[in-house]
Amino acid sequence: MEKYYEELIALRRNFRQIAEVGWLEMQTTINIIKYLKMLGLDVKYGREIHSADRMGLPSEEVMSEHGKKVNTDNLNFDVSDILKGYTGCIVEINSSNPGKNFGFRFDIDALPLHETDDPEHIPNKLGFRSKDNSTDHACGHDGHIAMGLGLCHWIVDNIEKLSGNFRIIFQPAEEGVRGGKSMTAAGAADGLDYMIASHIGMNEKIGVVGVGSTGFLATSKFDLSYEGVTAHAGANPQDGRNALLAAASAALSLHTLPQYSTGSSRINVGVLNAGTGRNIVPGESYMQIETRGSDELILNDLSKRVEQVARGTAESFDVKYNLSKVGEAINFETIHPEFIDYMAEKLDEKGFTTHLRPNLGGSEDVSYMLKRVEELGGYSIHYMLGTTLKAPHHNVAFDYDESVLKLGLDTYISTIEILSDK
Amino acid sequence: MEKYYEELIALRRNFRQIAEVGWLEMQTTINIIKYLKMLGLDVKYGREIHSADRMGLPSEEVMSEHGKKVNTDNLNFDVSDILKGYTGCIVEINSSNPGKNFGFRFDIDALPLHETDDPEHIPNKLGFRSKDNSTDHACGHDGHIAMGLGLCHWIVDNIEKLSGNFRIIFQPAEEGVRGGKSMTAAGAADGLDYMIASHIGMNEKIGVVGVGSTGFLATSKFDLSYEGVTAHAGANPQDGRNALLAAASAALSLHTLPQYSTGSSRINVGVLNAGTGRNIVPGESYMQIETRGSDELILNDLSKRVEQVARGTAESFDVKYNLSKVGEAINFETIHPEFIDYMAEKLDEKGFTTHLRPNLGGSEDVSYMLKRVEELGGYSIHYMLGTTLKAPHHNVAFDYDESVLKLGLDTYISTIEILSDK
Amino acid sequence: MEKYYEELIALRRNFRQIAEVGWLEMQTTINIIKYLKMLGLDVKYGREIHSADRMGLPSEEVMSEHGKKVNTDNLNFDVSDILKGYTGCIVEINSSNPGKNFGFRFDIDALPLHETDDPEHIPNKLGFRSKDNSTDHACGHDGHIAMGLGLCHWIVDNIEKLSGNFRIIFQPAEEGVRGGKSMTAAGAADGLDYMIASHIGMNEKIGVVGVGSTGFLATSKFDLSYEGVTAHAGANPQDGRNALLAAASAALSLHTLPQYSTGSSRINVGVLNAGTGRNIVPGESYMQIETRGSDELILNDLSKRVEQVARGTAESFDVKYNLSKVGEAINFETIHPEFIDYMAEKLDEKGFTTHLRPNLGGSEDVSYMLKRVEELGGYSIHYMLGTTLKAPHHNVAFDYDESVLKLGLDTYISTIEILSDK
Amino acid sequence: MEKYYEELIALRRNFRQIAEVGWLEMQTTINIIKYLKMLGLDVKYGREIHSADRMGLPSEEVMSEHGKKVNTDNLNFDVSDILKGYTGCIVEINSSNPGKNFGFRFDIDALPLHETDDPEHIPNKLGFRSKDNSTDHACGHDGHIAMGLGLCHWIVDNIEKLSGNFRIIFQPAEEGVRGGKSMTAAGAADGLDYMIASHIGMNEKIGVVGVGSTGFLATSKFDLSYEGVTAHAGANPQDGRNALLAAASAALSLHTLPQYSTGSSRINVGVLNAGTGRNIVPGESYMQIETRGSDELILNDLSKRVEQVARGTAESFDVKYNLSKVGEAINFETIHPEFIDYMAEKLDEKGFTTHLRPNLGGSEDVSYMLKRVEELGGYSIHYMLGTTLKAPHHNVAFDYDESVLKLGLDTYISTIEILSDK
Repeated sequence: MEKYYEELIALRRNFRQIAEVGWLEMQTTINIIKYLKMLGLDVKYGREIHSADRMGLPSEEVMSEHGKKVNTDNLNFDVSDILKGYTGCIVEINSSNPGKNFGFRFDIDALPLHETDDPEHIPNKLGFRSKDNSTDHACGHDGHIAMGLGLCHWIVDNIEKLSGNFRIIFQPAEEGVRGGKSMTAAGAADGLDYMIASHIGMNEKIGVVGVGSTGFLATSKFDLSYEGVTAHAGANPQDGRNALLAAASAALSLHTLPQYSTGSSRINVGVLNAGTGRNIVPGESYMQIETRGSDELILNDLSKRVEQVARGTAESFDVKYNLSKVGEAINFETIHPEFIDYMAEKLDEKGFTTHLRPNLGGSEDVSYMLKRVEELGGYSIHYMLGTTLKAPHHNVAFDYDESVLKLGLDTYISTIEILSDK
Repeated sequence: MEKYYEELIALRRNFRQIAEVGWLEMQTTINIIKYLKMLGLDVKYGREIHSADRMGLPSEEVMSEHGKKVNTDNLNFDVSDILKGYTGCIVEINSSNPGKNFGFRFDIDALPLHETDDPEHIPNKLGFRSKDNSTDHACGHDGHIAMGLGLCHWIVDNIEKLSGNFRIIFQPAEEGVRGGKSMTAAGAADGLDYMIASHIGMNEKIGVVGVGSTGFLATSKFDLSYEGVTAHAGANPQDGRNALLAAASAALSLHTLPQYSTGSSRINVGVLNAGTGRNIVPGESYMQIETRGSDELILNDLSKRVEQVARGTAESFDVKYNLSKVGEAINFETIHPEFIDYMAEKLDEKGFTTHLRPNLGGSEDVSYMLKRVEELGGYSIHYMLGTTLKAPHHNVAFDYDESVLKLGLDTYISTIEILSDK
Repeated sequence: MEKYYEELIALRRNFRQIAEVGWLEMQTTINIIKYLKMLGLDVKYGREIHSADRMGLPSEEVMSEHGKKVNTDNLNFDVSDILKGYTGCIVEINSSNPGKNFGFRFDIDALPLHETDDPEHIPNKLGFRSKDNSTDHACGHDGHIAMGLGLCHWIVDNIEKLSGNFRIIFQPAEEGVRGGKSMTAAGAADGLDYMIASHIGMNEKIGVVGVGSTGFLATSKFDLSYEGVTAHAGANPQDGRNALLAAASAALSLHTLPQYSTGSSRINVGVLNAGTGRNIVPGESYMQIETRGSDELILNDLSKRVEQVARGTAESFDVKYNLSKVGEAINFETIHPEFIDYMAEKLDEKGFTTHLRPNLGGSEDVSYMLKRVEELGGYSIHYMLGTTLKAPHHNVAFDYDESVLKLGLDTYISTIEILSDK
Repeated sequence: MEKYYEELIALRRNFRQIAEVGWLEMQTTINIIKYLKMLGLDVKYGREIHSADRMGLPSEEVMSEHGKKVNTDNLNFDVSDILKGYTGCIVEINSSNPGKNFGFRFDIDALPLHETDDPEHIPNKLGFRSKDNSTDHACGHDGHIAMGLGLCHWIVDNIEKLSGNFRIIFQPAEEGVRGGKSMTAAGAADGLDYMIASHIGMNEKIGVVGVGSTGFLATSKFDLSYEGVTAHAGANPQDGRNALLAAASAALSLHTLPQYSTGSSRINVGVLNAGTGRNIVPGESYMQIETRGSDELILNDLSKRVEQVARGTAESFDVKYNLSKVGEAINFETIHPEFIDYMAEKLDEKGFTTHLRPNLGGSEDVSYMLKRVEELGGYSIHYMLGTTLKAPHHNVAFDYDESVLKLGLDTYISTIEILSDK
């Protein structure tokens, strides 16, 4: 297995350097496809793997600008859709032996952060930090890509011994929970007996496999903009209508909302941009907001209150508002707890150190795929892959012990073995 | 005079299209110099016209990026300093007849606004809107440049009939009051008998010349940034320290401050940018702030309170702060009111419709030059040139009746005549 | 004159001890009437001196509670209306000689403050502080009452030498500008040739008489209440609708409004009370708000924005709101500036140190009476009576040099003399 | 048993009418003692049942004012300490048969709410609403008192058949968690084998007994006051330092804090009072705040952040602050889960409908007593007594189905029987 393990690390370090945010994983997608084609596989990508309704797409201008930086030299496949934001891909590897239909999902996008310049940061030390100072794989999806590709490699190498069919899904735009719904709507999770997914880190201890993650928070993502009236801040302040203060007031009001005794709830105004000049009453502002809840009642209640704050604050500051939903994910709670127990038991038998039902405490739009498979009669499981973190997820100093990649690949392979024998 | 009037309009429309903000007036400066050289004049520019302390300079990166867009083809002069933000220029035109030393100052920068897309907006209709959607001559400095160049043209044509010397100053970075102090410190206003400046619009009625503007507000410009701690907003919100909420709270608190019974006061948070991603507790925020006061006591008191809010809010939200002053202008009240009365009387005699001592109600860093000339024994005057405005200053729909350019040139010429005869 | 001067001080010290706030000046009114009756005068009071529309009345309960503390022993007049908040009184003293009709107005209410406990505070040292720790004559109306009564005493003593008629108006509820409109509507200022009023302090230097005060700010007073839903803050926070946070947010938003370049403007949220218990989501809140403007345009614009903030914030926090106007005063600018000049000149001749057109910088509902007299063809004047202040008006340590009482009485007597001779 | 059941309802309705808030349960305590003495019991009360450190005591003035309204006619015991806020009492009923030492705790205080005036509200319909419009038994402690007294009555009637000793604790000031720590420190829970407590309502269904409540949130209670500078809001706003805006800003900032993924957290600013007059810049403000956490780490972190907000906001608004802790309760998680299981099983056998380990989701300072007994080697249990609620706890329309009183008494008696046999 050593060659796979080494490749995992090499792949991870390569993909970390080309970190791209959601729907802009153009280079990332191209490089994944190139690798899969190198393995001799047929890859589905572009329009056919997405529904019409991709949420939270960047502007045409941003996509086009980003597209210009993508290296498309010497490609023997059509990337025009990829450069329009139809990122991600799906590969199907079918054995000739009858068996179960397995689905695996790996997310591939990065975050809009400036990776730390700290020279002690391993990616800096070893020279594999993000080449783009505005993007950072601060959630570990670089490792996810590596494990997905490593799994493909192993399956291809062992396909004759294996039975059944294997679908590996490389999903874009997990941050902001935008890609999962789109791919699921386009059928990514249809026709599967098993759906398997995972996340590295998330407070799981190094070497431990969390089995059957719980606590997927349902979430909605909103963009809120205010439009006021600009004016000279010295000569005519009374003629202005201040969109910056509207946004500031709304941000504070929104953050007073998430106290629920019936479950977990979260709100975050993650981005606020307002105003164009120091001596101008700001006429425009823009915010990125998200709500989360451990169930739909909480999420819907919170989201309704977001709308009230958005509208009321517009009224208070005499400005116009525009609120739109740009992403969403459902929560997920398995309907087959006994399947989770079974898997944990079997993994224990195989020598894994397991942790039953770890708590995710966040949102993941793989929930759409996990739920879809269960709805169609299959079984779903989500693993947490333990590792040592240098800093929390989404922090600019985030990094992890690469041994988790080996742990992940081993877990996926063992899962195939266990379920093939079931 | 008709040829000058027509040229004023042509010039104004040309400069409006290349609108550039403070310290980035690179193309603007180059085009001004080219015009002046065409008149056969010797121009001072670059390092020699500025002091070491240019406040509120854009980052090297921004300057360098902007510089790449500047057209420097076929130039027979060195623009390297201009591309480093040493913008603006000074021209001296000396007659061979003994006489007074006149100084004229014209500001040349634009505002960071997206000029309205309204098809009825004259610059859109006639095709001379800003080519850059992030900059807009929404304060009329395009007209100021045109009047300055038109004045040079007229002086050159009439130099044999004129006596004394004429210094015409094209000042950068008036918005944010950054260039005036720097040029004055470098001697721009030294050695003058008279200092003359003006602003178009400002509520003066069309055709009217306001004589001896009052109400120059002293002002300070601050940049305030907060540094918190990023964290995953779903999984670990408690690990974050929210720099966005700190900024929002500070913005509101700051805007509660400016109530003074002893004079005019203003505060504006003109820009607020915070956060990098929707699902990340925002770890950084940045604000552009300005304070104004009709006297130094008010300004200093307000500025002290800005500092308290900056520091206190950092403490409240457990984040670090950095507050720096990036611009300032003094207020100006002439010590020679009788000179203003004299000029108004003489302009009346020449057939102008005048308005004595109009109120500026804003800040203008020409105050440094006006005051400097008086301190050295000379006389200073500021005119308000009336015109019809389509929208207030600093509004994206700002535009003016171009007849004001003719009024301005006439006023400058008459001023030279009056003072040469005095 | 010495006996009058001494009496002024004694009266002032007496009335300071029984400080009562607007519409509750029951003991104050009774004591004024008793003094006037002692002089043998006939006094009008109760319902006949007020219109039906007294703004900003305390609740029946508060009036009734306060009424219980009033000493009504041994009175030979009916106080039932006074105990219902029909406070203040008017006395007419007619000479038998034909002449002008003079009106004088003195306001009589105190402020809801706890007078300082500082032992160095003169009223503490000399034992004449307010006996009620919730009320304080921190605006000097105790002195106004004393001057009004002293003036009555002097007129009575000199009635045979005087000509014309004298109406002295003791007006309640000037704080919050509630009594002036009501008394004017009931005719208090009708039928007068001259209206004279004054205020002590207000930055006028000791010994100086400000003649023809300007800068009366128009003002509106609002009560704003929010009604949300209470809930257990630990067990069911999501069921609450927080009226305290609505009020807090509204207070901040309101204080961001008053920046006008066209004149003076003010806003103040003077009182905020919200919530009933620490562990209860607050279901109710209440605020006292005032707006001011140097002209009606500013005042009306500000007041409209108050309404927007009130309504918008209710929407934001999902609570109900109730906004009502409880007081108002117009601004006043004399239409007879030459009359002011005349009075100043005559007072100068009589040896007064005068200050022409001092700036009030606040609101005063005597504006209704001043304007009414001018509208009916008469003349109005307002004096500022200089004195040394220990602390600003409305501060708990407010106190003044009592020599101002003598200055005031002298000014009133001289005014009568000047105008009788005119 | 019918006579006890009827008495429970009569008692509950009596105590509801004399609702008194924490440390002011003077009439309530006196009436409890009278009832207990009527049963022939010896009662401990006053100073001997409290430690020196009673947190969150009302001011001497408030206690003294309230004391004046207490009916102390015809009492044969000393109430002087009770009138100083040493409220509550303890009774010990010892059987002559050897056995276990049982402790029972009942809380007796009401909330500062105006009980709804809705005529459909049962206490209004049947005439037993709180006679004081500022207090309301909106948490059901009236029923707790009734059950405590009913239990005493039953024990006295059955003492010969019973074995062991019974201590019944009537605790004041549970709201605000102030009395539990004080009584526990004075030994109330020492020397007991079993500690039993309960709460009615709390989402438990009618007829159901929740056994072994979990989710006691640790909590801290803070008073925060700001002291600024008053000034005339029209004439000298710049001289004021606004304590109202400081409080408003702090309230909003505080409510943005409680997002923790490691457990439950809460914050509430329950009361905010600021300012004295509409036209005065507010110089003082006062807030009642509470924090809660499912564990001490969360509570301490939140409490530390409260301190930062308190201090930082003072700095921002240039005012002084004073923050003091006035109440606290620890969380409680039993160390004997098997005891809870045992009790639930036995109660099931006796025909009760039970609900294992219901979630309290709030704070309760009986946690001090429950923990103390376990620390000294005994066993503790907390019941939730199901009933139908008309409105949530702490809502002004709160009321419950009185059948819960019978359920409660039955549960207590059965608990004695089960544990006596153990």
